[in-house]
Amino acid sequence: MDPAAGRVWIVGGGPGSSDLLTVAAARALREADVVLYDRLGPVDELPSLAPGARLIDVGKRPGHHPIPQERIEALLVEHARAGRRVVRLKGGDPYVLGRGAEEVLACRAAGVEVEVVPGVSSAFAVPAEAGIPLTHREVSRMFTVVSGHEPLSDDDLARLAGLSGTIVVLMGVATLPSTVYGLLRQGAPPALPIAILERGYRPDRRVTAGTLATIVVTAAVAGVRSPAVIVIGEVVRLMHVAPDAHDEHLDLIRAMAASG
Amino acid sequence: MDPAAGRVWIVGGGPGSSDLLTVAAARALREADVVLYDRLGPVDELPSLAPGARLIDVGKRPGHHPIPQERIEALLVEHARAGRRVVRLKGGDPYVLGRGAEEVLACRAAGVEVEVVPGVSSAFAVPAEAGIPLTHREVSRMFTVVSGHEPLSDDDLARLAGLSGTIVVLMGVATLPSTVYGLLRQGAPPALPIAILERGYRPDRRVTAGTLATIVVTAAVAGVRSPAVIVIGEVVRLMHVAPDAHDEHLDLIRAMAASG
Repeated sequence: MDPAAGRVWIVGGGPGSSDLLTVAAARALREADVVLYDRLGPVDELPSLAPGARLIDVGKRPGHHPIPQERIEALLVEHARAGRRVVRLKGGDPYVLGRGAEEVLACRAAGVEVEVVPGVSSAFAVPAEAGIPLTHREVSRMFTVVSGHEPLSDDDLARLAGLSGTIVVLMGVATLPSTVYGLLRQGAPPALPIAILERGYRPDRRVTAGTLATIVVTAAVAGVRSPAVIVIGEVVRLMHVAPDAHDEHLDLIRAMAASG
Repeated sequence: MDPAAGRVWIVGGGPGSSDLLTVAAARALREADVVLYDRLGPVDELPSLAPGARLIDVGKRPGHHPIPQERIEALLVEHARAGRRVVRLKGGDPYVLGRGAEEVLACRAAGVEVEVVPGVSSAFAVPAEAGIPLTHREVSRMFTVVSGHEPLSDDDLARLAGLSGTIVVLMGVATLPSTVYGLLRQGAPPALPIAILERGYRPDRRVTAGTLATIVVTAAVAGVRSPAVIVIGEVVRLMHVAPDAHDEHLDLIRAMAASG
């Protein structure tokens, strides 16, 4: 291989369906020599999406030792320097809480050519699939996307509680109780609707809905697990419940819709 | 035509490059009988993207009478009821400040089948193109997307000023002075960086950067015009300035980067 030909694409894989890859992302995968992936994006279809590539799982799974971020960055640089076309496939969009910027900076610092291919963010595509718009006239004019990977500080919770717009929490299942109790402590209304949207676009996706007052118990009983997108705000009332939805809380949602 | 075959796809067209259409969006366009479009998304390439479709411009241009939203919704319903495959092409993502939800509700109220195809939102893809991640470790953990189509209320400005995360304003060129002065009035720091990213992915795109204290004058001198994405926050300092950028303010950006 020609070392000069090596380069890296940091690719947004979208919310999980290969239909929601961008044309540019599909092309980068098709032409890749190496793909580094984790559990997000259209992972099941990788063998057909990237038929010529060596597929390397760098995913972090509960109970397994994660591959440290520095090691992922080193792998990107290593393979590109060997002349390979390297795709780093990420869920959603690489720049939306995805640490994509760190990977770009690492490549650039190593003198490796790098390009970002934006993707459809799970932050709004997953709510859209459940019929929840993040903004809607006379309901919410703004939305805030935040990482729940670590518990939010009281300062952040106070700001979010006072914001009045829609809040989207990514990677927030493990920290759900601290987020919800924190928002309540900072003055958010107990009746504020909240929906937990598990497994984005997969056939076994599920919606669990409630209010700040009820959701922690409801989610625990339902056994909610990551990955999931959490939406907090009045727009949850607009949720369209498909007849075949995997949803154990239709009555609650309908009651909320009726009361809205 | 078979009236039963008619249906509507509300399609996110992404930030402007046809490469950033999703696979599903490209297919919907390819198979469409009618496309309703405005000035956002990959509009110049529509004749080749939707070769079999009648193209209807419903765009709102300054100085022209806009087509009212109700009329757009009526057209969607009318064409679908005539048995046509109707695509409503929108810029970015249909559910991110795009009034997509209103169009979905209108179709549903009329008994017309409707599907939303998410898109790559300009809210983060346009900043990404300029090298600005909306979140970055130790700089910003959250971002808020807000419409600047109408001036923000003092309440909203106070919340945004206190949020400490990144703020993205869409459709905010005309209201830039009121947004900036409002944020300053509500206590945002005058040195807070801000970048105005005109014309997303087009070849003639341009970046104009400054601080809350300087940007109104700088933007006026540069003659900034919509469409543009406005990013406010410390992440603007991470902006990567490409050697060929259409940018009259490189020195300022470099000075900000050096001071950051």
